[in-house]
Amino acid sequence: MRVAVLGVGLIGGSIGLAARGRAGAHVVGYDPDAGALSSAVELGAIDEPAFGIADAVSDANVVFIAAPVGVAVGIARTAFDAAGTECVISDVGSTKRQIVRAITDPRFVGGHPLAGAETAGVEHAREDLFDGATWYLTPASGAPMLASGALTPATGALSPAAGAPPPAAQAPATAIERLRALIERFGARPVTIDPDDHDHLMASVSHLPHVLANVLVAQAARVLASEDLAVEDGRLDAGPSFRDATRVAGANTAIWTDIYMSNRDALVAAIDEAVDRLREVRKTLEDGDSDGLAAWNEQARSAREKLRRAGLAPGS
Amino acid sequence: MRVAVLGVGLIGGSIGLAARGRAGAHVVGYDPDAGALSSAVELGAIDEPAFGIADAVSDANVVFIAAPVGVAVGIARTAFDAAGTECVISDVGSTKRQIVRAITDPRFVGGHPLAGAETAGVEHAREDLFDGATWYLTPASGAPMLASGALTPATGALSPAAGAPPPAAQAPATAIERLRALIERFGARPVTIDPDDHDHLMASVSHLPHVLANVLVAQAARVLASEDLAVEDGRLDAGPSFRDATRVAGANTAIWTDIYMSNRDALVAAIDEAVDRLREVRKTLEDGDSDGLAAWNEQARSAREKLRRAGLAPGS
Repeated sequence: MRVAVLGVGLIGGSIGLAARGRAGAHVVGYDPDAGALSSAVELGAIDEPAFGIADAVSDANVVFIAAPVGVAVGIARTAFDAAGTECVISDVGSTKRQIVRAITDPRFVGGHPLAGAETAGVEHAREDLFDGATWYLTPASGAPMLASGALTPATGALSPAAGAPPPAAQAPATAIERLRALIERFGARPVTIDPDDHDHLMASVSHLPHVLANVLVAQAARVLASEDLAVEDGRLDAGPSFRDATRVAGANTAIWTDIYMSNRDALVAAIDEAVDRLREVRKTLEDGDSDGLAAWNEQARSAREKLRRAGLAPGS
Repeated sequence: MRVAVLGVGLIGGSIGLAARGRAGAHVVGYDPDAGALSSAVELGAIDEPAFGIADAVSDANVVFIAAPVGVAVGIARTAFDAAGTECVISDVGSTKRQIVRAITDPRFVGGHPLAGAETAGVEHAREDLFDGATWYLTPASGAPMLASGALTPATGALSPAAGAPPPAAQAPATAIERLRALIERFGARPVTIDPDDHDHLMASVSHLPHVLANVLVAQAARVLASEDLAVEDGRLDAGPSFRDATRVAGANTAIWTDIYMSNRDALVAAIDEAVDRLREVRKTLEDGDSDGLAAWNEQARSAREKLRRAGLAPGS
């Protein structure tokens, strides 16, 4: 097994470590940042550096594009020109519609591991970064989604019988299976999802929380700066809820500008919904309606319980 | 040292454990819930149960009211009638203006430990719950705020020379010092703050994050329920940012309805500011202004850095 990693930052480096350590793969890496590339060799994240994208992918069985969403499509085009016909190429971008629409090559299967957002750089890469993490896969619509070929009744919309005729560009089932098996060796849990659904889900459960974290830190900084808080010697504290709510605030600007831009229609809709919900609770507060507030909080409790059962929220 | 704890839930029980284990105090507890009271005895959170508020506080040197904000004032009134003249009475409520305005007895010093929000009940009480936690104290305006009597130049608004004449009702410095010393024995870090400033700060850094967590879970549950997400067998995942952002969603309804209600003017203002900030980033998204998005994210990064230096946010 030969794996190519295009972009050796936190995610690419961790893929290299996991591919070498857990799948016994020979890993070739490429990064336009020569310093990152030599660090990746020193840290054992890759076996050998390549001179360019074509050089990295020419003999690879599996290629991972681990670059910001905004440049992944361009990298993919170069990679497909040089890759073999049996090669499967995936990416790790946080949004999937843009790249799935742009890349119609049947060797492509979009991917998105839910891991690692706080740190950046190959020096933080870890072989166990993906342990237990969900790793979304977004084959082109119409492609077989499950190993068995069976579709659950609840997802009938994806059934080949029910959907539109499959487009020409589908990754062969064997390519998808090879990718799934490798991701499982990394310790992750591959989950196949429609690219549109992925991006709409992420708008509400990932991109909106990042936006809100940014809003919270900006607002708290304004409160600290503009009010002459009467407190001893600057030893303020916000408590654990603020720390948790703002853990992802001000995440890597290059990566996140791309994510926001590539999902902006869905994110705008998610922001609109959040603003409507804020207006509702604001009115309840303004009315002094404590029963209404209690009911609103109970709705959140049951929503949280529903999400917990679906595996989306921590245990209460 | 005799300590009375009125309300033996998570916070009251932990105060009892810390007062017994770390300050060698004799702890008397009272709770209208007889089951909670007997659990508190069994768990060693209190030395003895009392028959009522007056019984609990009559011989106490320090009294902690550990009940929801909405009932704390009534409990305080009963306690002051029965407490000795040298007794200091505090509370643990998450908002401070309401109780500080209602209770003008000079033996009262408002308090708010930043600890424990996820679990409830004396069975989760821990002696070390307050280790390293900030414990805000809000003496009535004009009361001496520091052990040394010195005020930092930055907090000149509270300087006796600069402010209005102090009102009649101030806790004596010795009472405040006794409370501070006890809280330090609990492992916490007492920080004196003006009650108005406390509530406005908490509106932005605690109550708003709780509101946003409720909004996020309600919205994610709506997405899950209304869209026929094309995903294998319900194994969706939101990733770690959603888990962190919603850890406090649907917090205890009785406690939090009181908190929201008692700080609703400040919380409405905080929501309005958050909505304005969301509208701004929404417009940037709608305009497809990637430079504007990058600048907005960089502002959040520097706000987070400012908060980190002030001790309000985790290290980046």
